Amino acid sequence: MNDTPATEKIYTACLLIIGNEILSGRTVDANLPFLAKRLNEIGVRLKEVRVVADSEPAIVKAVNEVRVACDYVFTTGGIGPTHDDITSGCVAKAFGTVLERNAEAVRRLERHYPPGSLNEARLRMAEIPVGATLIDNPVSTAPGFKLGNVHVMAGVPRIMQAMFEGIAPSLVGGKPVMMRSVSCTLGEGVLAKGLGEIQARYPHVDIGSYPYYRVGGFGVSLVARGTDPKELETVAQEIAALIKTLGGTPVFDGTT
Amino acid sequence: MNDTPATEKIYTACLLIIGNEILSGRTVDANLPFLAKRLNEIGVRLKEVRVVADSEPAIVKAVNEVRVACDYVFTTGGIGPTHDDITSGCVAKAFGTVLERNAEAVRRLERHYPPGSLNEARLRMAEIPVGATLIDNPVSTAPGFKLGNVHVMAGVPRIMQAMFEGIAPSLVGGKPVMMRSVSCTLGEGVLAKGLGEIQARYPHVDIGSYPYYRVGGFGVSLVARGTDPKELETVAQEIAALIKTLGGTPVFDGTT
Repeated sequence: MNDTPATEKIYTACLLIIGNEILSGRTVDANLPFLAKRLNEIGVRLKEVRVVADSEPAIVKAVNEVRVACDYVFTTGGIGPTHDDITSGCVAKAFGTVLERNAEAVRRLERHYPPGSLNEARLRMAEIPVGATLIDNPVSTAPGFKLGNVHVMAGVPRIMQAMFEGIAPSLVGGKPVMMRSVSCTLGEGVLAKGLGEIQARYPHVDIGSYPYYRVGGFGVSLVARGTDPKELETVAQEIAALIKTLGGTPVFDGTT
Repeated sequence: MNDTPATEKIYTACLLIIGNEILSGRTVDANLPFLAKRLNEIGVRLKEVRVVADSEPAIVKAVNEVRVACDYVFTTGGIGPTHDDITSGCVAKAFGTVLERNAEAVRRLERHYPPGSLNEARLRMAEIPVGATLIDNPVSTAPGFKLGNVHVMAGVPRIMQAMFEGIAPSLVGGKPVMMRSVSCTLGEGVLAKGLGEIQARYPHVDIGSYPYYRVGGFGVSLVARGTDPKELETVAQEIAALIKTLGGTPVFDGTT
């Protein structure tokens, strides 16, 4: 018996990271970890992430593949004023629509920029797909937008995070996803059999085994994720008991 | 006229990051930046990255989609001894083959583990798809493997990096991809028009514009990537001249 009926809807999301700078290794993405954690809190599971180049065919294809596979799609990057900012047009194309100069977006940019500095390049940031609604940008004004289930946001983490917090209250999710972690210095191979048995007994909990190498030696973190805090606590205790049975010392790493 | 004929083959790669721990935000991936930089040196462009869950249908689908789209596929994660390590079986399935207990992999594990400790869970790490060749693991022994153009590697960065260095000499690429970066504190929107004109004149160079917010203010890095160092230098100088023309101070950020 379980509080979570098997038919309860699992809300899913995909993150589409758009930008050559991530694929070239120049920039290390920081939006994935932020979004993953915030979505856990909202009860939405990040199901897939794709990083695609600043290429129209690649972006259009990816948008159309993921928007039917997930409840929510979030994109980051490519909505600035320069030649490599092509996300808005690609999302419009993916939806079979076109860009238009959005009057409200123009008004916001007009208020933001000093007189005379709102040039054609900056006005490109007011080109929004027909039918989209704006996503506020409290950091640097130029808005993102939502079209269907696709949320188009900036790539700069500070702006992306501010945009996300603006739309977060509108996202419908399930129960928050929580995590409980227990570590030890036993080998994964020693734990594997017993851990698999615990996983089999708790199908609503996702148990992961993550070996690490740190200064001072190696070890493994055993992480239980799920929506029922009591069940997570039970699983964590069973994992700790398994570790003790095998001669190890369980360390509880805290909760999220 | 250009040293790089338009018909020169561009070698491409896709990275498939397999693991719930990345999608949950628990673990921040470190393999993408490493692989991206090493591939630049080898003359292979990282064209796409996907992060997928520990789910057989998701992994099989992703493997089959990316292996036809790129010259090389690299996977990280999911080849350990625990229940959530399902990558090897999924890759076998994607290729229409099956796992077999690989005799050479067993021999390596037998040499590595103390007598009596090579249990069934650890022997799972010797289950390799029929037709695959092993990838050495000088850190913790359990091998990766190569099947077709798919290179299956561990997720722990230290092991992944060691595995990659073992196979790197076998990868065929084009000219190394280099980078030249110039920064300034002008707004992107001020630079956009001139920058687009430079990009149009140098189609073999990929120019990106990346705004940043740091302590002390905001700015933008203008990054030129390509395979011809002389052309990159020319582009960097033109970008610097553009910055000066617009009243800014160009800062050369170094090369890679």
